[in-house]
Amino acid sequence: MIKAGIIGATGYAGSELVRILTSHPEAEITYLGSHSYAGKKYSDIYPFFYGICDMVLSEDSVEKAAEECDVLFLALPHGIASSHVNENVLSKCFVIDLGADYRLHDADVYEAWYKTEHMSKGLLEKAVYGLPELHRDEIKKTRLVANPGCYTTCSILTLYPLVKNGLIDNDTIVIDAKSGTSGAGRSEKTANLFCEVNESIKAYSVAGHRHTPEIEQELSLAAGSDIVLDFTPHLVPMQRGILSTCYAKLKDGVSEEDVSRAYHTAYDGEAFIRLASYLPETRFVRNTNRVDIAWKINRRTGRITALGAIDNLVKGAAGQAVQNMNILFGLAETAGLEAAGGV
Amino acid sequence: MIKAGIIGATGYAGSELVRILTSHPEAEITYLGSHSYAGKKYSDIYPFFYGICDMVLSEDSVEKAAEECDVLFLALPHGIASSHVNENVLSKCFVIDLGADYRLHDADVYEAWYKTEHMSKGLLEKAVYGLPELHRDEIKKTRLVANPGCYTTCSILTLYPLVKNGLIDNDTIVIDAKSGTSGAGRSEKTANLFCEVNESIKAYSVAGHRHTPEIEQELSLAAGSDIVLDFTPHLVPMQRGILSTCYAKLKDGVSEEDVSRAYHTAYDGEAFIRLASYLPETRFVRNTNRVDIAWKINRRTGRITALGAIDNLVKGAAGQAVQNMNILFGLAETAGLEAAGGV
Amino acid sequence: MIKAGIIGATGYAGSELVRILTSHPEAEITYLGSHSYAGKKYSDIYPFFYGICDMVLSEDSVEKAAEECDVLFLALPHGIASSHVNENVLSKCFVIDLGADYRLHDADVYEAWYKTEHMSKGLLEKAVYGLPELHRDEIKKTRLVANPGCYTTCSILTLYPLVKNGLIDNDTIVIDAKSGTSGAGRSEKTANLFCEVNESIKAYSVAGHRHTPEIEQELSLAAGSDIVLDFTPHLVPMQRGILSTCYAKLKDGVSEEDVSRAYHTAYDGEAFIRLASYLPETRFVRNTNRVDIAWKINRRTGRITALGAIDNLVKGAAGQAVQNMNILFGLAETAGLEAAGGV
Amino acid sequence: MIKAGIIGATGYAGSELVRILTSHPEAEITYLGSHSYAGKKYSDIYPFFYGICDMVLSEDSVEKAAEECDVLFLALPHGIASSHVNENVLSKCFVIDLGADYRLHDADVYEAWYKTEHMSKGLLEKAVYGLPELHRDEIKKTRLVANPGCYTTCSILTLYPLVKNGLIDNDTIVIDAKSGTSGAGRSEKTANLFCEVNESIKAYSVAGHRHTPEIEQELSLAAGSDIVLDFTPHLVPMQRGILSTCYAKLKDGVSEEDVSRAYHTAYDGEAFIRLASYLPETRFVRNTNRVDIAWKINRRTGRITALGAIDNLVKGAAGQAVQNMNILFGLAETAGLEAAGGV
Repeated sequence: MIKAGIIGATGYAGSELVRILTSHPEAEITYLGSHSYAGKKYSDIYPFFYGICDMVLSEDSVEKAAEECDVLFLALPHGIASSHVNENVLSKCFVIDLGADYRLHDADVYEAWYKTEHMSKGLLEKAVYGLPELHRDEIKKTRLVANPGCYTTCSILTLYPLVKNGLIDNDTIVIDAKSGTSGAGRSEKTANLFCEVNESIKAYSVAGHRHTPEIEQELSLAAGSDIVLDFTPHLVPMQRGILSTCYAKLKDGVSEEDVSRAYHTAYDGEAFIRLASYLPETRFVRNTNRVDIAWKINRRTGRITALGAIDNLVKGAAGQAVQNMNILFGLAETAGLEAAGGV
Repeated sequence: MIKAGIIGATGYAGSELVRILTSHPEAEITYLGSHSYAGKKYSDIYPFFYGICDMVLSEDSVEKAAEECDVLFLALPHGIASSHVNENVLSKCFVIDLGADYRLHDADVYEAWYKTEHMSKGLLEKAVYGLPELHRDEIKKTRLVANPGCYTTCSILTLYPLVKNGLIDNDTIVIDAKSGTSGAGRSEKTANLFCEVNESIKAYSVAGHRHTPEIEQELSLAAGSDIVLDFTPHLVPMQRGILSTCYAKLKDGVSEEDVSRAYHTAYDGEAFIRLASYLPETRFVRNTNRVDIAWKINRRTGRITALGAIDNLVKGAAGQAVQNMNILFGLAETAGLEAAGGV
Repeated sequence: MIKAGIIGATGYAGSELVRILTSHPEAEITYLGSHSYAGKKYSDIYPFFYGICDMVLSEDSVEKAAEECDVLFLALPHGIASSHVNENVLSKCFVIDLGADYRLHDADVYEAWYKTEHMSKGLLEKAVYGLPELHRDEIKKTRLVANPGCYTTCSILTLYPLVKNGLIDNDTIVIDAKSGTSGAGRSEKTANLFCEVNESIKAYSVAGHRHTPEIEQELSLAAGSDIVLDFTPHLVPMQRGILSTCYAKLKDGVSEEDVSRAYHTAYDGEAFIRLASYLPETRFVRNTNRVDIAWKINRRTGRITALGAIDNLVKGAAGQAVQNMNILFGLAETAGLEAAGGV
Repeated sequence: MIKAGIIGATGYAGSELVRILTSHPEAEITYLGSHSYAGKKYSDIYPFFYGICDMVLSEDSVEKAAEECDVLFLALPHGIASSHVNENVLSKCFVIDLGADYRLHDADVYEAWYKTEHMSKGLLEKAVYGLPELHRDEIKKTRLVANPGCYTTCSILTLYPLVKNGLIDNDTIVIDAKSGTSGAGRSEKTANLFCEVNESIKAYSVAGHRHTPEIEQELSLAAGSDIVLDFTPHLVPMQRGILSTCYAKLKDGVSEEDVSRAYHTAYDGEAFIRLASYLPETRFVRNTNRVDIAWKINRRTGRITALGAIDNLVKGAAGQAVQNMNILFGLAETAGLEAAGGV
């Protein structure tokens, strides 16, 4: 059994890792670290896990956890992971960082968007951006996986085939994304209270959300040229789910068939991606690691609308992290991630 | 007191008209017509109104109602109003049609999008598109008001100052709109059930929603040239509210000040429009006739994101209809529409 | 115009007072006090009120506010009001306390349930329990109104006619109450986050909720003998509304007619109480000061189930407070409180 | 592999059976029957299952399905199952009926509450009430399992130890139950629309719900004497979950220890029952087959409040059905039912 540890285990992404790992056929949890709740039983924080994971939380020490684990999942606010991961840690265990610290290859871009110094720039070139559908082969060879953001996973996968195959005008990309509230985390802010979120929808971080450079990095790599785009996140009164509605001008002469071929070439054979005959609804992928993608061409305007849906806590965080673990350890990518969702 | 009738009183828009009119200082309801519930007490259909509006529903006859009313609100499926409104009816009362039949000036466009023949084309040039902020003077002179759609009200008002003042490239307009579920009406469809809507978000009618030509008509008029655009509606698990997130490329050299001036010139003095220092959230306008509008310029991409929020049942339907009634009868536009919303 | 002040204006009950008072025909807000937000504009805290109430918040001083107001609404945590209200304050203005400090006539009971010393016991006998349907005449004569709690308003009104007329066995009363989340206030607690409340229901404070002695006090007064009962509150994933489902054994020989007569005798003529032919649903009274009450006798078990529904922020807090203000100033009780709710 | 068929596969309980069975290590679905959708792909009805269960729906013939299956799950409206199950069917496969037809041992009681004739009275004595925690040994020996109702599972399990051990006065039992909306099924009724359910709570079927005799039957059996009780269901604006809040007078002299011992004796060792240190919240058992139970004694009133929570679609329907299948086939009871829930 793979010995797995989680640092930052009491956030929502951490709890989702616990949910998935406790059902994983080849892994067991051996370390749960928490800054605020060390010493408490995990099931006292999340009674979901009463009788399932009653382990006592340890301190949130990356160094200590590395001694006891084969793989370490970090679910920490940005800036923390990069202060604690180092060569010594990586020599002892694989690290899958669910935070932002190792996602951007360029430390300057990181520091510009996150307004903080990067504390382990030297590791950036060792880190691999953990989107298996794009970087599976590199993931196999690394010890440090930068697990993608939730909005970015959904948006990149939805647009990648179009960009990769040069089917759209890259200057015209607009991503309008909608997320469930678990994406805002478990912090005690007025804005996250039930009565402030329920029965309302809003945009936030317009023209300034930190997932923007991450999407741009990956799509630019796919395009082979720099892309800047508009990304607007919205908060939806639901718990889980992201829907990315992506708009771009199709290049002249691009046909339905060209688009369909691009998506099928990119994703046929992918275990978690469904090129859907229906329009994606976040509920269809809720509690699963699946991605539903569909598109529609508007001949009146010459634009394509591509839609992708994921569960932000699964494919957008914990599920993808486990998918990466599966790759690192040579397991089937779907191990522990096969269950269907439902009503 | 103005004698007001409602045909199609038992849909959600009809019920909202009842809510507003029962508090209106200068109007009283004298006719409630229903196809399905004639003979029943209104408060048996909507117990909200028990003790407030216990009137018995009459048949849904435009002709009969016209005899008993000074103004008639029609809240009917498309195609019905245009079969029943005629010169005789208009000679007896004002008609405010909340449906789509008189909104599009061009009958061919109507027939192309609605796939049905228009039954009173002769009235189209007498009808006025009832968006007071754009057409107040014409509304004052008509007897037939085509009350705008919910998505269209929100989207047009959000984009109008940009288009009117030539600040954006009109070929680049993308409208990503999100609506509460009351917009789907009260019909008994599986897709409208609680368990199908709750905890999910989806796009629908991608590249084909019937509010598209209505938005295009009004923005084209403002621009003085034909505009086609992408409009994508989404269903949000909440009851009321529309948020339109509108994207367009700013023309070269357009400054923050140009944009701000355009909005203030268009809307300063408007009773219901708030140019907001905050990003709009639908809850801030819930249960009110207000429109919250804000915008953000992204200098990295050269695009503007303009956001507008309304309550789809109020400014998007019944409230705007009453605003139009107020104009027709020379009342203050805010009569009966002043109450604040809240948590 | 009545000059009204609110201390603790930035909680949900305070915001609801602002919503109601800004539409009130005979009152205007002249003082808004806040502990945390003094110096800020009210509409910056609650953008609902942008353009409607942009007043700057003052410090939360009862003494200062008393100088500038005819009536003062206190929406404060328990223990605070009783430290600041005194004869001097009452000589200058009416005080309507939405908190718990003056609701229990017996200071010992208060101190036992609230675990804190009562700081102005001398005022307890001057205070009147502000449930107009039971104590209208005494309210007219006081300067200090103890506005009832939300659960208590709903539960007392639902059971009062049965107890008053001796129709039930008072030892068998069980109240199972369900509340929307605004009742938990605006405090930043994990338990109030959207993702902790949504898609779940729970009981809390079982056998120990502080509204229990308040319900017992009023029902005991009605019965003329001491009543103890079980009261269990539940948290429902909705914003507003309380439903009290009340159970008791009917006394032998009590008929349907006896019960019906008791309710009608108690409440016919009451502006806000509707003895409903339908089963109460909280939505039917949402945003209004109304109370819907119905009952059902189960001949198999000999028990009656009586159900009451209110909006916890209106009849359960701010609306009832304004109703009390109307009584104190000799206005129609319904002034500012007539609007219907809706979908 | 066990060959499993589902008749009535397109209702919510049916879809939950598909969710569970597609992950079950020892079962495979070989027949899906539907009255309304025969000939369609299952994943076209429920896109959740796209790529997971794309089987084409067959007609809803019990007889045909029996030929192709080892076990048949019936998820049909009452009255249908009893017309189609017969000795011939039972000779070919096990039948687990999720409907009401075989739950009540007394056909007269069935006919009184369901207002319809029972079509296979002869099978009633062969049927076993499929609540494994109470009737495990009998289930092992039958071929016809009457899977309990959702409210009943939750309410019986919550009260059983108290009744079995004679700790409460059986005349004083009141059950106040709250259910998510999936319990209302997928039928297209106005009352089930999002805008009618959302933001509201209501009681329904007061003093007359059909789960009442089922609860009474099982508790009477446990008590060894006839019990009648009040059972009041409520509809909660959430998808899944039932909370039963149960009240009864403790007998004189019953101690905390007596109560605790009764629960532990009844349930220690049960895989799915958690005697919780926290108060049950339906989210803690969502998507799982678990039951959370807790209780509180109120010494002021002499009453106990016992609380139980389940997921109505899992332990209240499909999960319990699979638990019964596991018992019938000699598998571990938890097979396919072990996964934890989560945020």
